[in-house]
Amino acid sequence: MNEGFALDPRLAADTASVAELPLSRLLLMDDARFPWLILVPRRPGLVELADLDRAAQHALLDEVQRAGAALRAAAPCDKLNVGALGNVVRQLHVHVVARRAGDAAWPGPVWGAGRAERYAADAREALLARLRALLG
Amino acid sequence: MNEGFALDPRLAADTASVAELPLSRLLLMDDARFPWLILVPRRPGLVELADLDRAAQHALLDEVQRAGAALRAAAPCDKLNVGALGNVVRQLHVHVVARRAGDAAWPGPVWGAGRAERYAADAREALLARLRALLG
Repeated sequence: MNEGFALDPRLAADTASVAELPLSRLLLMDDARFPWLILVPRRPGLVELADLDRAAQHALLDEVQRAGAALRAAAPCDKLNVGALGNVVRQLHVHVVARRAGDAAWPGPVWGAGRAERYAADAREALLARLRALLG
Repeated sequence: MNEGFALDPRLAADTASVAELPLSRLLLMDDARFPWLILVPRRPGLVELADLDRAAQHALLDEVQRAGAALRAAAPCDKLNVGALGNVVRQLHVHVVARRAGDAAWPGPVWGAGRAERYAADAREALLARLRALLG
């Protein structure tokens, strides 16, 4: 099922890998302004949610919830933002972003807001380790 | 289950009602720049997707897909954008937006992009009728 899957190079360039979930590759966006995860189902050629069958759509939502719970535990927030846009990177991917009142884009969306600020390497590794522990 | 549900007044002011789906009220955003639906589960006190149990989360996603298919049939597009943000209106709601390359916010997100342009009444009624027919 994963044969032929390759992560979009823009997603690869902007993220660090957190874990492989049963359906999706879980990524951390390398932007210290917002605790931000991205799920990419490991199947080739997906663009829209509707390109997954119903069972896989439900499985993806379960993984979004699992990722969201871990993110929220690692980075307490006021609101989770969940979105599947794909206007720039067409490969199907779902964002889960921990938003805090007053953060760099609040209350607007994070997509297209300003420029990413990369994590310091040790801070990124610490967050990745915390997320992996929370995901079990 | 719907007892105590009341649509957020900002959502009510910005939308027209399309239909009642089994879980959600389906709304059309009154912004002619983007064919844009919003689903609001008719249960009181919801903020996060995680406030729904798993079966209801799946049911909501099924309704998102149903709404997205109708929207796409009524308004051909290059990409559907699906998002649950809630930074401004906390009542749980899911956006389904038909995006076209070159539209007023492309390739950025629609949320917070410029000012809504209301439909002419006859255009809004025609789109509502088309959507209702497509939803069966």
